[in-house]
Amino acid sequence: MRVMLRVAYDGTGYSGWQKQPNAITVEEVLCKACKNLFAQDIDIIGASRTDAGVHSYGNVAVFDVDTRIPAEKISYALNSRLPEDIRVVESRQVSENFHPRHVECRKTYEYKIWNDKFENPLVRYYSHFFYGNLDIGKMNEACRYFIGLHDFTSFCSVGSQVQSKIREIYSISVEKNNRLITIRVTGNGFLYNMVRIIAGTLIKVGQGQLEPAEIPKIIDGKNRELAGPTAPARGLALVEINYEKTVDTN
Amino acid sequence: MRVMLRVAYDGTGYSGWQKQPNAITVEEVLCKACKNLFAQDIDIIGASRTDAGVHSYGNVAVFDVDTRIPAEKISYALNSRLPEDIRVVESRQVSENFHPRHVECRKTYEYKIWNDKFENPLVRYYSHFFYGNLDIGKMNEACRYFIGLHDFTSFCSVGSQVQSKIREIYSISVEKNNRLITIRVTGNGFLYNMVRIIAGTLIKVGQGQLEPAEIPKIIDGKNRELAGPTAPARGLALVEINYEKTVDTN
Repeated sequence: MRVMLRVAYDGTGYSGWQKQPNAITVEEVLCKACKNLFAQDIDIIGASRTDAGVHSYGNVAVFDVDTRIPAEKISYALNSRLPEDIRVVESRQVSENFHPRHVECRKTYEYKIWNDKFENPLVRYYSHFFYGNLDIGKMNEACRYFIGLHDFTSFCSVGSQVQSKIREIYSISVEKNNRLITIRVTGNGFLYNMVRIIAGTLIKVGQGQLEPAEIPKIIDGKNRELAGPTAPARGLALVEINYEKTVDTN
Repeated sequence: MRVMLRVAYDGTGYSGWQKQPNAITVEEVLCKACKNLFAQDIDIIGASRTDAGVHSYGNVAVFDVDTRIPAEKISYALNSRLPEDIRVVESRQVSENFHPRHVECRKTYEYKIWNDKFENPLVRYYSHFFYGNLDIGKMNEACRYFIGLHDFTSFCSVGSQVQSKIREIYSISVEKNNRLITIRVTGNGFLYNMVRIIAGTLIKVGQGQLEPAEIPKIIDGKNRELAGPTAPARGLALVEINYEKTVDTN
């Protein structure tokens, strides 16, 4: 059967999702737990190849396995074989042809900024510390220019090998709660470092170094150098991948 | 001059606040940073001797020093000498007779519970994981019996050497936000493990193992064995110590 997992992790200790020859990744640790549980090699297909240091509340992983363990129980069996910074929060059977990257979905990311005079030790691994004043109103003004279908070449790190850089952003907002700022963005997919470059650009807007109305020019320029810097990984978390009605549970 | 610090820390790596012969504590690390900065031994008086693993957003520490560094700049100088899990979030001069434990204050603690089927890796160090169903309404009903001036002997770990176990609780509430439950309590002082025993007792109420109306009986019994278990340290954080008008800045 084909099994879908939702996987939460603290990315602090990992070199991202995808397997690498000389670094520990979430995919590798998950594969080892699967091999231990099913006594066979398991190939995992991940929905989002999150970067080193990026967190997740529910990345999606899919694999095929021959087992008598009911799909919904696999989460428990895997969790007892995983370190405490990775948790399978759901497991279920999906149709044999379901591929988490070839099916339409809505992905939601959050970027968190601790905006105060001093760092907060309690959120230091899960937020980017930024001292300066940030104008939340202006940041939200800038947000609306990102919404819609655009070529996001300016918001993609050089080196990405995808063919089309057109993506659709459904919603994006900036909220401040006490000294914690959350940028929340939902779209049909994101390019390499795209959310972090959007965050870095919105920080420049918040500082007054960039006007909200300049965002369309940056998008149209299709040039990475026009956008702001790539904000640090620790502030980013993949919140949810929503396949809506495209996932059958057989 | 007498200097007051507000100190935030991630308690995960420390054996609590107070100096100990064979363990690393927050007070010790703070004293070393002071010694390095002022080139003299500094005795620190802490307001709250938080336990091993307990966190803080603003514990208060006071010390005397002869220095030409302006009081408000001491925070910056100390932070550059502290590990990233401790941050001095404020420093200022107070009157020479100010003692953080001999002056009336309001202390606020929060106890966090991650109430879901699976642990959340992103809050694992800052919350107590509890799987079972918890009735928030009943927990709040129980809360009101704690409010007021009471002898809290039943909510104090055996071994405490304080003379009077009478304390006043000004407010206490339980809130659920998604799967994160926060117990927030403010009082004029707390006995050894008092907030964690209150949290453990409220969890029993939430599970239906104890009725809210039984709380007065537990308080009146003045017997530690009547109350619930001591909830784990990682869920607890000292949020604020408020000295209101009792602190003069000279």
